[in-house]
Amino acid sequence: MSAGAMTPQRFADLWRTLAPIGHGESGYHRYAWSPPELACRDWFAEQAGARGMPVETDRNGNLWAWLGDPAAGDAVVTGSHFDSVPGGGGYDGPLGVVSAFLALDLLAERGLAPARPVGVAAFAEEEGSRFGIACLGSRLMCGTLAPDRAAALRDPDGVWLAEASGLDPAGLGPDPDRLAGIGAFVELHVEQGRALDRPVGVASAIWPHGRWRLEFTGQGNHAGTTRMADRRDPMLTFAYTVLAANKEARLRGAHATIGRISAAPNATNAIAERVTGWLDARAADQSTLDGLVEAVSVRAAERAGRDGTTVTVTPESVSPATGFDAGLRDRLATLLGAPVLPTGAGHDAGVLAARVPTAMLFVRNPTGVSHAPGEYATDDDCAAGVTALADVLAELACR
Amino acid sequence: MSAGAMTPQRFADLWRTLAPIGHGESGYHRYAWSPPELACRDWFAEQAGARGMPVETDRNGNLWAWLGDPAAGDAVVTGSHFDSVPGGGGYDGPLGVVSAFLALDLLAERGLAPARPVGVAAFAEEEGSRFGIACLGSRLMCGTLAPDRAAALRDPDGVWLAEASGLDPAGLGPDPDRLAGIGAFVELHVEQGRALDRPVGVASAIWPHGRWRLEFTGQGNHAGTTRMADRRDPMLTFAYTVLAANKEARLRGAHATIGRISAAPNATNAIAERVTGWLDARAADQSTLDGLVEAVSVRAAERAGRDGTTVTVTPESVSPATGFDAGLRDRLATLLGAPVLPTGAGHDAGVLAARVPTAMLFVRNPTGVSHAPGEYATDDDCAAGVTALADVLAELACR
Repeated sequence: MSAGAMTPQRFADLWRTLAPIGHGESGYHRYAWSPPELACRDWFAEQAGARGMPVETDRNGNLWAWLGDPAAGDAVVTGSHFDSVPGGGGYDGPLGVVSAFLALDLLAERGLAPARPVGVAAFAEEEGSRFGIACLGSRLMCGTLAPDRAAALRDPDGVWLAEASGLDPAGLGPDPDRLAGIGAFVELHVEQGRALDRPVGVASAIWPHGRWRLEFTGQGNHAGTTRMADRRDPMLTFAYTVLAANKEARLRGAHATIGRISAAPNATNAIAERVTGWLDARAADQSTLDGLVEAVSVRAAERAGRDGTTVTVTPESVSPATGFDAGLRDRLATLLGAPVLPTGAGHDAGVLAARVPTAMLFVRNPTGVSHAPGEYATDDDCAAGVTALADVLAELACR
Repeated sequence: MSAGAMTPQRFADLWRTLAPIGHGESGYHRYAWSPPELACRDWFAEQAGARGMPVETDRNGNLWAWLGDPAAGDAVVTGSHFDSVPGGGGYDGPLGVVSAFLALDLLAERGLAPARPVGVAAFAEEEGSRFGIACLGSRLMCGTLAPDRAAALRDPDGVWLAEASGLDPAGLGPDPDRLAGIGAFVELHVEQGRALDRPVGVASAIWPHGRWRLEFTGQGNHAGTTRMADRRDPMLTFAYTVLAANKEARLRGAHATIGRISAAPNATNAIAERVTGWLDARAADQSTLDGLVEAVSVRAAERAGRDGTTVTVTPESVSPATGFDAGLRDRLATLLGAPVLPTGAGHDAGVLAARVPTAMLFVRNPTGVSHAPGEYATDDDCAAGVTALADVLAELACR
């Protein structure tokens, strides 16, 4: 490890300037382009300005701050995102942005002048919590999400993406010139399980994963007067499917979760007419994932037959396995003396990996909690992450 | 049956004047004191006015229209309610009010002059869909709901009961003088299962029933990265409990329904931290109901132990069995030649039965659907219901 290490106190000092934004009793609520996320964007502009870095918002709503002229090409970019899941933690995303600015400070203190442009990025709507599509900004930039599909998105209040973001809907979409100017992308992120027993690791791959909408339809009816034998209750089919998904995932060493539900009419004294659940499924390889989703679908349909209900399964977003650039991965693991590990979580880095040599650094998560208010990394580990990121930027941009 | 029967056409003509109010694609949304329910109240005033009946709103928000002077005492009152469950049907409640006015028309046409005051009532918030307590207006009037508890109620938007209703919070509560002036109460209501094979029946009893809030708490976490073995997922405990409630009810010939759910953070890519379900349970007798709720609670707690979650069970409103006045019931059944049947549904009549000789008439429901847009009774059966109600009013008020 190079000299010029980040201290926990310095990390904490900058962290404290961002941490209160969008934080409440039930965790963080930083939805894309909501007031708290816009406040994070203002914070980004201030941090960039304090370092003399010009800021731009690209056609897809992603933020960029530059050291050196990006037109020179072969840039090294680092960053992450600000937006959170509902009631999420403060580290998922923001840690990568805070660490990026602090790593640049370390480079300067080490007397290192980048030989290539260095960028800090904050991508839009990574969690998909507002418009339902994860990695919205990076997918649009990389051309893996059709612009017209994005332009048709509305949030739960019916607000159009263009309206919420202030973006020109006609401008949404692939940004090949921008991608062509990036030589490498490195995202630092809090680890999201308990897979890391040291402060910092390097990512090998992202599991294939996706979201499937499960719609269960039955017959709404009176809860008090409808005989059990006369019911067609979709809540039963939903409940069976929740348990089946859990079991099928365990059998395969995969992950399946149904954490989101909507019922109608959702009245205490009425049998539901319709229940919608969202299946989040992930596995180490595509065939395991396919087998898992198929098994859940078959078991849901079987149960629907018994309940007199129907079920439809609709993929909402499915991401294949992403292997990060092997050369970059090995180079960083060697440089940092860090372990290499896969993750079940999707990231903007996974989207960019298809277009740009990409790597990820993980910072240890002592509790394994993520996407919840208890998400946490120690200041010591976060500082170690900043130092590691500075080492990586020195290696990639300053030689 | 007396001469002077209602025709399906006359029934339909009046029904059509009320039916469009609060009706949309997903059924009726007539929440207490919402614009559609206020429009129904205006309709009530118009109908009363057209029949020369003065209208008053009592201290608890219930509407009354009078033929004769209620101060004379020993009044015969009929009526029901206007409010609906979310996405409900049009018959549950309004049929009893429409039938009341039409039955008075028949009495007049038969040349019968009531010897006692006759009232038409529309009770407030029977479904509990806005403030969460069923039969709010009748319970307050009868003193079975504490006024301070009612005054503290807010709807899901945070609006206080007094604010929504325009009632004086200090005036809420028991209305003994009003009750003392009522000699009999008869509520006509659409039947809510498929228990009636003739147009009209007479109620024997209301099953004991209630609502229990089931709160399942676990640990919110990332859906992609949290190992299955590390999870404490309350959605699993909820799902198991849904299936257990169904099975335990079937074993006992009782009814159990979980049709309402709330999950937090309710995000696709997060394991839920908390899931709340509401159990609606009903049975023919109290010990069966107690046994059912106990069995569901025990099985939920057992499963929570396996899931690493916790569950609490809180009764929100529990109503004991209500037997209607036996003498009145037998008198009406004989008069109408109608079958006698129990119901699993709560009604304002069930509340008034504790204080006033009370009876209910049911009109056949050909599909058994209720609390859903498909709730329905034929014009022929509704007309038969009006005729029966007129026969009852003639028997009780005109001799």
